[in-house]
Amino acid sequence: MAEPPQFASLDDSIVGRLPSHVQQLFAAKTAKGLTFADLATALGRSEVAVAALFYGQTTATTADAATLAGLLDLDAHTLQAQLAAPFPDRGRAGPMPPVEPLIYRLYEIVQNYGYAYKAVINEKFGDGIMSAIAFSTGVTKEVDADGVAWVNIQLRGKW
Amino acid sequence: MAEPPQFASLDDSIVGRLPSHVQQLFAAKTAKGLTFADLATALGRSEVAVAALFYGQTTATTADAATLAGLLDLDAHTLQAQLAAPFPDRGRAGPMPPVEPLIYRLYEIVQNYGYAYKAVINEKFGDGIMSAIAFSTGVTKEVDADGVAWVNIQLRGKW
Amino acid sequence: MAEPPQFASLDDSIVGRLPSHVQQLFAAKTAKGLTFADLATALGRSEVAVAALFYGQTTATTADAATLAGLLDLDAHTLQAQLAAPFPDRGRAGPMPPVEPLIYRLYEIVQNYGYAYKAVINEKFGDGIMSAIAFSTGVTKEVDADGVAWVNIQLRGKW
Amino acid sequence: MAEPPQFASLDDSIVGRLPSHVQQLFAAKTAKGLTFADLATALGRSEVAVAALFYGQTTATTADAATLAGLLDLDAHTLQAQLAAPFPDRGRAGPMPPVEPLIYRLYEIVQNYGYAYKAVINEKFGDGIMSAIAFSTGVTKEVDADGVAWVNIQLRGKW
Amino acid sequence: MAEPPQFASLDDSIVGRLPSHVQQLFAAKTAKGLTFADLATALGRSEVAVAALFYGQTTATTADAATLAGLLDLDAHTLQAQLAAPFPDRGRAGPMPPVEPLIYRLYEIVQNYGYAYKAVINEKFGDGIMSAIAFSTGVTKEVDADGVAWVNIQLRGKW
Amino acid sequence: MAEPPQFASLDDSIVGRLPSHVQQLFAAKTAKGLTFADLATALGRSEVAVAALFYGQTTATTADAATLAGLLDLDAHTLQAQLAAPFPDRGRAGPMPPVEPLIYRLYEIVQNYGYAYKAVINEKFGDGIMSAIAFSTGVTKEVDADGVAWVNIQLRGKW
Amino acid sequence: MAEPPQFASLDDSIVGRLPSHVQQLFAAKTAKGLTFADLATALGRSEVAVAALFYGQTTATTADAATLAGLLDLDAHTLQAQLAAPFPDRGRAGPMPPVEPLIYRLYEIVQNYGYAYKAVINEKFGDGIMSAIAFSTGVTKEVDADGVAWVNIQLRGKW
Amino acid sequence: MAEPPQFASLDDSIVGRLPSHVQQLFAAKTAKGLTFADLATALGRSEVAVAALFYGQTTATTADAATLAGLLDLDAHTLQAQLAAPFPDRGRAGPMPPVEPLIYRLYEIVQNYGYAYKAVINEKFGDGIMSAIAFSTGVTKEVDADGVAWVNIQLRGKW
Amino acid sequence: MAEPPQFASLDDSIVGRLPSHVQQLFAAKTAKGLTFADLATALGRSEVAVAALFYGQTTATTADAATLAGLLDLDAHTLQAQLAAPFPDRGRAGPMPPVEPLIYRLYEIVQNYGYAYKAVINEKFGDGIMSAIAFSTGVTKEVDADGVAWVNIQLRGKW
Amino acid sequence: MAEPPQFASLDDSIVGRLPSHVQQLFAAKTAKGLTFADLATALGRSEVAVAALFYGQTTATTADAATLAGLLDLDAHTLQAQLAAPFPDRGRAGPMPPVEPLIYRLYEIVQNYGYAYKAVINEKFGDGIMSAIAFSTGVTKEVDADGVAWVNIQLRGKW
Repeated sequence: MAEPPQFASLDDSIVGRLPSHVQQLFAAKTAKGLTFADLATALGRSEVAVAALFYGQTTATTADAATLAGLLDLDAHTLQAQLAAPFPDRGRAGPMPPVEPLIYRLYEIVQNYGYAYKAVINEKFGDGIMSAIAFSTGVTKEVDADGVAWVNIQLRGKW
Repeated sequence: MAEPPQFASLDDSIVGRLPSHVQQLFAAKTAKGLTFADLATALGRSEVAVAALFYGQTTATTADAATLAGLLDLDAHTLQAQLAAPFPDRGRAGPMPPVEPLIYRLYEIVQNYGYAYKAVINEKFGDGIMSAIAFSTGVTKEVDADGVAWVNIQLRGKW
Repeated sequence: MAEPPQFASLDDSIVGRLPSHVQQLFAAKTAKGLTFADLATALGRSEVAVAALFYGQTTATTADAATLAGLLDLDAHTLQAQLAAPFPDRGRAGPMPPVEPLIYRLYEIVQNYGYAYKAVINEKFGDGIMSAIAFSTGVTKEVDADGVAWVNIQLRGKW
Repeated sequence: MAEPPQFASLDDSIVGRLPSHVQQLFAAKTAKGLTFADLATALGRSEVAVAALFYGQTTATTADAATLAGLLDLDAHTLQAQLAAPFPDRGRAGPMPPVEPLIYRLYEIVQNYGYAYKAVINEKFGDGIMSAIAFSTGVTKEVDADGVAWVNIQLRGKW
Repeated sequence: MAEPPQFASLDDSIVGRLPSHVQQLFAAKTAKGLTFADLATALGRSEVAVAALFYGQTTATTADAATLAGLLDLDAHTLQAQLAAPFPDRGRAGPMPPVEPLIYRLYEIVQNYGYAYKAVINEKFGDGIMSAIAFSTGVTKEVDADGVAWVNIQLRGKW
Repeated sequence: MAEPPQFASLDDSIVGRLPSHVQQLFAAKTAKGLTFADLATALGRSEVAVAALFYGQTTATTADAATLAGLLDLDAHTLQAQLAAPFPDRGRAGPMPPVEPLIYRLYEIVQNYGYAYKAVINEKFGDGIMSAIAFSTGVTKEVDADGVAWVNIQLRGKW
Repeated sequence: MAEPPQFASLDDSIVGRLPSHVQQLFAAKTAKGLTFADLATALGRSEVAVAALFYGQTTATTADAATLAGLLDLDAHTLQAQLAAPFPDRGRAGPMPPVEPLIYRLYEIVQNYGYAYKAVINEKFGDGIMSAIAFSTGVTKEVDADGVAWVNIQLRGKW
Repeated sequence: MAEPPQFASLDDSIVGRLPSHVQQLFAAKTAKGLTFADLATALGRSEVAVAALFYGQTTATTADAATLAGLLDLDAHTLQAQLAAPFPDRGRAGPMPPVEPLIYRLYEIVQNYGYAYKAVINEKFGDGIMSAIAFSTGVTKEVDADGVAWVNIQLRGKW
Repeated sequence: MAEPPQFASLDDSIVGRLPSHVQQLFAAKTAKGLTFADLATALGRSEVAVAALFYGQTTATTADAATLAGLLDLDAHTLQAQLAAPFPDRGRAGPMPPVEPLIYRLYEIVQNYGYAYKAVINEKFGDGIMSAIAFSTGVTKEVDADGVAWVNIQLRGKW
Repeated sequence: MAEPPQFASLDDSIVGRLPSHVQQLFAAKTAKGLTFADLATALGRSEVAVAALFYGQTTATTADAATLAGLLDLDAHTLQAQLAAPFPDRGRAGPMPPVEPLIYRLYEIVQNYGYAYKAVINEKFGDGIMSAIAFSTGVTKEVDADGVAWVNIQLRGKW
């Protein structure tokens, strides 16, 4: 029997760390059978940005909140008030170092290659810093000739 | 007066955390006036991989070690023994959380967007994990129409 | 469509760390459409002091509490009792090191320049200490000739 | 008997955490009887920036290094190589939380008022971040009518 | 009097760290008098995998969830929704270092022999990594000639 | 060109955490071109036990020390004194949580499956504990039908 | 307008760390308009001891509990049961290092002068220890000739 | 046989955390057979202040340094330069929480009674803070009627 | 007036860390006026084992649970289910390092004498380990000739 | 072949944490073939006290130092100066939590049974504390009827 399509859900145990409307967003998204890719297309934003919105790590314009309310069958006015909380209290979604294995792998990349990135970036750009705020990011799926899947992550930050 | 070209150097205070040949590598590279981009071209590896080699976080084949010895005017035999330490003790270059601002920005991306990446990747790939070892990465420089520089980092990990 | 004016809100997930009346204060402030600048003008105190009052980090006189109750349409008697809790249990608003990126930048300044400040202050003032309690602070906005905004923060502490 | 003028010195116990030329810089500065204010005037940079240079937290141009070598009677060539280490490994001067009382006071300001700064800055500037890198800072001494000294610190960061 | 058979139970104090359906699973299992070995046989999975499912550390197919619902007399539909949360938030069951003595012993093995494992595995497999995700594990009981019981744990991870 | 056979080496930066004779052991082993598998066969002990001996985590009998001295061309008397340090100060080879990726994977298994192991072991053995001292362990290499390598680790501890 | 007299209150956010009757004690004390000095006089104990009783850090005799119940208009029987919890679970009132600035100053004294106290006490008393349990303490207010207030704290511990 | 008089010594293992002249001071003091009480009398400062000077936690005037050099038979010029390091890097003498039992007792007092001190001080002085820098302290020995010794510590800090 | 006999009670603030039936056990014990010594006699187990049972750190046989239910006037069936939770989640009763002074003293003994115990035990028993699980312990009271009380603790662990 | 008798040795890697004469003491003891039991008999002190002396955790009288010098063939005068360092800097021998498995077992006892000890001791002795300084301790070996060895540790602390 084929498995049904799967949607990212919100672990019960993480709820207390996030704004209270987050739980409702995930439930509505699963009920509607929408992936982050679907929402990203509808909103014209990257998938990671949309997922970050669901985790309370970024904000939506009132127009985006209205579109999202339509897609998720939620009250537009309420959702605007919730998502437009203009200045999210970022950085609280999970513990650091991450205990979730997939997120840990990203952390491990910073741990192992952090100085290598610094050295290469400094040689290319001089002394300075890459912004983690004026920043966009995407994830794409690649399947190579042997049928092996590869995760491609792009990070783009203002210098 | 124009500033001279600049090469990533090794902070004295980090030396004790890294294999002892690392200091010599950085000194030789600066003396020869070579950037990581120069070495990457000569070795046919990514710049980050070459920088990671300089920080003792990855290994070189004996052929690569020979090429590198030539470029840096070091003894090939010794360098092969040093770099080919086949199984590097990874993860020790710096403290976590990073105190170096540029490296902290990468850490902050994992802190803020970790769960967003997980959600998007899981919806695209199902349950599983992206490798941080069977992994390649690159850094490119982009200058937009307003003359603003952007750092682009690509991460590619096997699923 | 122009975005509506925005007011600092209180993240749901931080509520448990702060005195219970804090949530009501933020809600009333947003409902009345008042910024911290508005309140600061009305109370004759700095904006940061007023915001600190909202986060339970400082106290109000009974006169200030009455003025604030009028502005926010709250019961003056109750608010006086709440704000005049004469000796606030300071220092509990957020984790250290901060995970919120904007607050982290201030932390980073202390981390990077702490000894530099100490050296300069000691040479100017001798051995001693700057008070963080008999202390005032302000934030002003500057826009330079290129239209770039700069945050100016002033700290003034008794020696 | 009047006390002699005093110069910030480098505690023996901190030496191991900093680049090795730092110790020589402090010794030369004391031997020449120069304050950071003297050096700042000669270099046309802020006192805190000059002190940060002495703690290995920022860089000097080759011209500045030459000027400094002249003032401190050090070899210009060597000093240029040392100070122009183009990409300093920042953030390592002291432990966090700071144990030094004066530096702790600055940390305490971030701990107590962090969210207040964030709220005020967000209302003035919208969602975003203040740079701790494209950043300048100064310290001035104020003596009020009662003869009490106050430390004034100005922070100015790009938005 | 012979002691009754014993079933692993869920400590009240750990409930808050795990998904909310976990408590119901343990209660139903005890009520039915089923061991993890019984469930493992019925599901055709290893005992550790089944126990990990009860602690919210892995997922079940919809077929497995249906079988489990039958065995535990729970509503199949609800259980499928709960267990098939497709992307569990792993790694949160307990604190690290573990305070539970039995789990601490496993941690101690990693602490004492971690580098020994690395050295032996590297010599056998070259540079690389053993997956902790594409991974299976089992526990068997051995009683030696003297009647002493030994715990045998097998770990099998993809290279 | 075929890569030469590879031998686990001792990272320079870890030397200070281990007994001083450890460095000499690794050097002699590489010079002789012996793997841990070779030594294990000669000593009749498991490979992991021999590697643990090299990291100062376990002891050797005087007979084993003599055999090892012969194999490594070291002075038997000195080696006996070093290895027979009868009561090693265990647990100091690396930091916890491990930063080395391969060792972290083992740690992650304990983190994710710790309670699952406890539950299964308790149901099989009752209340009690598995020894991490009266303990043996081995590593074997398996290549499956698709040519994929799997690491098999066996842990066997007295109950 | 003169400020009303002020009474130490219990921050809402600390309630969860203390025995549940603590909240009622502070409320009753404020309602009755009694300071710790008033209560100390009535009970014949030091002010700090009475405050420690309110924070659940020490115990009351049944006679003291009866007196206190009378002063605070609470039920004597209930209060006796609560306060006479004979063996308080000490040390849980706040985090260490303290984040509250006033308490931090006491911590800082231990941090800065700890070894100095040890050296002086050892020379006066020999090797041994001062009890922190068979211990009394007081706080007095001193105003010097310039009208400056000084806090005097006396610690007296059995050797 | 009567034990000889005893002088506080400097543990070898703490030397690396303190300025390098500290070791010489302790050695000279023991050689001269002087207690901190003797030095305090000669210098007209409190014993704890003198001990703090020996641990690098406070400074000496040039006059005091000269007196001390005379008492300890050290070169006055060198000692002045060492002790007059005008701005000591305080707070580094020992770890926190203290592991030394006697110092831990002082820490425990802050841990257990911190909030009690805050409550009593606030009621006596209002909102504010006691200085740990404009601060003096003393230790006296009391022997009660039963011959039991008590340590009395006085702390006096500016409000 | 003589103080009434005293019974160990459960601090409200620790309740959340322990299994939920623990609170009822302490209340019933106090209501019945039974000490741990009374219960230990009735159950034929050591006092510390009985107290550990009350803190959820060990288990009871069904016979012991029945006896205890009779002594405490609790429902035998319910208590058996609660206490016979066959595999307690040990190690969670309090924080480490302990903040409770009496428990800290035991911790301090391990901190100060840990290596001394190891050295003496190793010389007596060889290399190996003392079990903390196959372990019994007792506490006895001794009053010496001067009327001073001494606590005697016996630890007995299998080698 | 029978193994030679074994003497506790000092791990090279722990040397830096202890007073410098410690290394010499262990070497002399092994060279003389003396156990701590032998030394304890000669000095009339407990074995643990003698071992603690070797780890710098306690002091010796000048008479004991003379005896010890005789037994170990060391210079009596030097040893007296070293051992009689009258006020040892206790608590620094190893990290906490201990990583050494045998010492961890003692720590685990405090972790698991800490509150149980407190409850039993409080009921026997009332509110108060057991001294970890006015304290004696011993270790004895017991072999039961089945030939199994048991470690018995006695702790005796003044109340």
